[in-house]
Amino acid sequence: MKRLIIASTSTLHGGRYLEYLMPDLRRFFDAKKKLLFVPYARPGGISHDDYTVRAKLAFESIGIEVSGLHEYENPVDAVRAAEAIFVGGGNTFLLVSQLYRFKVMDELAEAVKNGTPYLGSSAGSNITGLTMQNTNDMPIVYPPDFRTLGLIPFNLNPHYLDADPRSNHMGETRETRIKEFHQFNSLPVLGLREGSWLEVEGEKITLNGSLTARLFLQGKDAEELRPGSDLSFIGR
Amino acid sequence: MKRLIIASTSTLHGGRYLEYLMPDLRRFFDAKKKLLFVPYARPGGISHDDYTVRAKLAFESIGIEVSGLHEYENPVDAVRAAEAIFVGGGNTFLLVSQLYRFKVMDELAEAVKNGTPYLGSSAGSNITGLTMQNTNDMPIVYPPDFRTLGLIPFNLNPHYLDADPRSNHMGETRETRIKEFHQFNSLPVLGLREGSWLEVEGEKITLNGSLTARLFLQGKDAEELRPGSDLSFIGR
Repeated sequence: MKRLIIASTSTLHGGRYLEYLMPDLRRFFDAKKKLLFVPYARPGGISHDDYTVRAKLAFESIGIEVSGLHEYENPVDAVRAAEAIFVGGGNTFLLVSQLYRFKVMDELAEAVKNGTPYLGSSAGSNITGLTMQNTNDMPIVYPPDFRTLGLIPFNLNPHYLDADPRSNHMGETRETRIKEFHQFNSLPVLGLREGSWLEVEGEKITLNGSLTARLFLQGKDAEELRPGSDLSFIGR
Repeated sequence: MKRLIIASTSTLHGGRYLEYLMPDLRRFFDAKKKLLFVPYARPGGISHDDYTVRAKLAFESIGIEVSGLHEYENPVDAVRAAEAIFVGGGNTFLLVSQLYRFKVMDELAEAVKNGTPYLGSSAGSNITGLTMQNTNDMPIVYPPDFRTLGLIPFNLNPHYLDADPRSNHMGETRETRIKEFHQFNSLPVLGLREGSWLEVEGEKITLNGSLTARLFLQGKDAEELRPGSDLSFIGR
């Protein structure tokens, strides 16, 4: 059975890396002893090694050993053999480019469909959707495709941000950007605020955390969905 | 001689479309009577027709007649025949996709190199750089290439935004995103704040408006450049 935790962000303001998620991650990863970390998104350009250390330190506290996908000579085999997978945040264009380059995009999707539990945060969450087209990131590299894992039947906008009514800035709001997307695409988009996460068990998708999430459907007004909502209806 | 006005934004908070630029545009377009408007970026998904009306109304006040590039059967010929060109803002991914689709990317660059005056705002400014990789926009469509007009020897980040020290949001700041770009690319990037514009005359590039602009060079600390600065040194 497909099992995922899909988090808007890895870190809350003032908190430590993954801290707010740890009680749920302990339960979610259950008897797993080893986790394969995908550091490709390299937030702020951090090295694969340094990024993997960050994940190692976080998972030490719940007795899970972490290795980085970049440490393996054959990434495809490493994904196939993984007990559990965590794809960290950073730049989505870079992450997607590297997943295609190392031919692990399809392998990751296959592993999760076959029951390997998957944790994603930020860019690692964005790619669980059908395409990466609702990322907030800068296109610092050119990926061969915008299609992603398709483990949920809609797209995600992590770090969803409400418009600031005090702002005089004329750049587009997040809502405007997503509405522009819907001029050209029919896929539903879920805006997931920092502190929210989805838990997927088979075909069931639940909204977790204390905040509402904002659902954008083509040609309809955006809608706020309450914490605890069953989101399995989206995109079906 | 190459002549461009490259504006961070079309509109200042509380102002009308292009209003703050009109005194300079009157001088810049001088004896030109007709302007070709490129509405491809479609801000907020507005139609080509409606967007062109917006440009028509703004230029009426200085006696310049506007036509939309979408009105021509042969866009390549329209670009070649243009007296003056204005590429409006909106979504950069869409704009670049359309320019390639209608085979006018190279034609636009050629026309401007041959002396057709060019006004760009926001997305229309972003594409005057070497690549569109420092856009803030959402990748709502997949362009065939990130390369753009290359009319200035560096890249632009329009609507440049300083980090808000009061914010608890954990999404990347603009500066972080540009630094991530420099992990993989060596092109200089200029952050152009709303209200700033560049004027290009041949090889000379001047910063206009009352604000400083923020220059990012690979491997160096970011630097504030004063209004009136000669920016011709960047990327040479």
